Amino acid sequence: MEKKVSASVVNRLPRYYRYLTELVAAGVERISSKELSEKMQVTASQIRQDLNCFGGFGQQGYGYNVKFLQAEIAKILGLDQGHTAILVGAGNMGRALATHTKFESRGFRLVGIFDNDPKKIGTLINGHTIQDYAGIEAFIEERGPKMAILAVPKQVIHDVAEELVGYGIKAFLNFSHAELSAVEHIAVENVHLGDSLMRLSYKLMQQTNGEDA
Amino acid sequence: MEKKVSASVVNRLPRYYRYLTELVAAGVERISSKELSEKMQVTASQIRQDLNCFGGFGQQGYGYNVKFLQAEIAKILGLDQGHTAILVGAGNMGRALATHTKFESRGFRLVGIFDNDPKKIGTLINGHTIQDYAGIEAFIEERGPKMAILAVPKQVIHDVAEELVGYGIKAFLNFSHAELSAVEHIAVENVHLGDSLMRLSYKLMQQTNGEDA
Repeated sequence: MEKKVSASVVNRLPRYYRYLTELVAAGVERISSKELSEKMQVTASQIRQDLNCFGGFGQQGYGYNVKFLQAEIAKILGLDQGHTAILVGAGNMGRALATHTKFESRGFRLVGIFDNDPKKIGTLINGHTIQDYAGIEAFIEERGPKMAILAVPKQVIHDVAEELVGYGIKAFLNFSHAELSAVEHIAVENVHLGDSLMRLSYKLMQQTNGEDA
Repeated sequence: MEKKVSASVVNRLPRYYRYLTELVAAGVERISSKELSEKMQVTASQIRQDLNCFGGFGQQGYGYNVKFLQAEIAKILGLDQGHTAILVGAGNMGRALATHTKFESRGFRLVGIFDNDPKKIGTLINGHTIQDYAGIEAFIEERGPKMAILAVPKQVIHDVAEELVGYGIKAFLNFSHAELSAVEHIAVENVHLGDSLMRLSYKLMQQTNGEDA
């Protein structure tokens, strides 16, 4: 199997994974690239091309084995690694992420939520007790999570990230408005919710122009 | 100017827009593709290629006029259209979106928040009074928003979307776990927060493999 896959293929894999997970849940055993393409609203040739990057799992005329394909994509994405993650910041965004994200069904375990607000420490979100940020170093040392989801104010994001790298965190999912740069040996994924709003604006304009034409 | 731009260029434009907005705020007047590329961690040739899609705004040797480029990208994305949006669903996710999203600085106006929970109706989020979903048709008729941000449970997403299309909504930003399909004349942007977690998992694995090698 090739090690490096193009960024745009990697970007599409989570979506394949979600669809396949739904198909598995619905008891579907095999699916053709044509059916998968209709369901996902991408071309069948795109699907074949994407999945061929990994050696291709389909057999001409037989379609894909849904469970096998799901498991292979999980491996490629590293969802079989049993990642443990912590969440830092229990404001509105942190609270939404903790309750709204399907950690378990994606192969992740959220093992701790941290904040430095005395009013929040000790309260519960979705079964997790919010812990004092002051104890985060000891927690990371003991439990060894490699991922941190950051939902802290943009003013402190760089300090918090630097501190956590010092404690052993290797990957950040960043929801603050300030972008974290990827540094050596540290993986970063910046999420900007406003970007999707701007993309929607573009699509809406295309629709409107289309109607006028 | 060309009307259709490739999806991957459109996907990158919000990020350009964010950076340029920061540069404008910092008082920077001109920037070379080399500087912009270092700041954004993409290649200078990628930047030139992306911006050339729209006729190119840079002058060889003089760099880009930051304010002009920002305004042009805003136009391409339709951020100069004065979009008004409503938010449906005032749970954790809706609350986070209403407080965390930079609507105004991106050219959007959030004009109403709706929920059907009597305990939430009448309470405030970030200056907005949560309104009864029962009154949404009259509100849309009066105020004419074209965009709806959906933060409702996945079980009701399709019914809510269909209803809102009937009332005149043309574009959806969907944060539920169920994917909305784009239908004719309706723009859809589905946001899956778990996808970014899966992408991070992939990056983390690449890092780890790199270290072992």
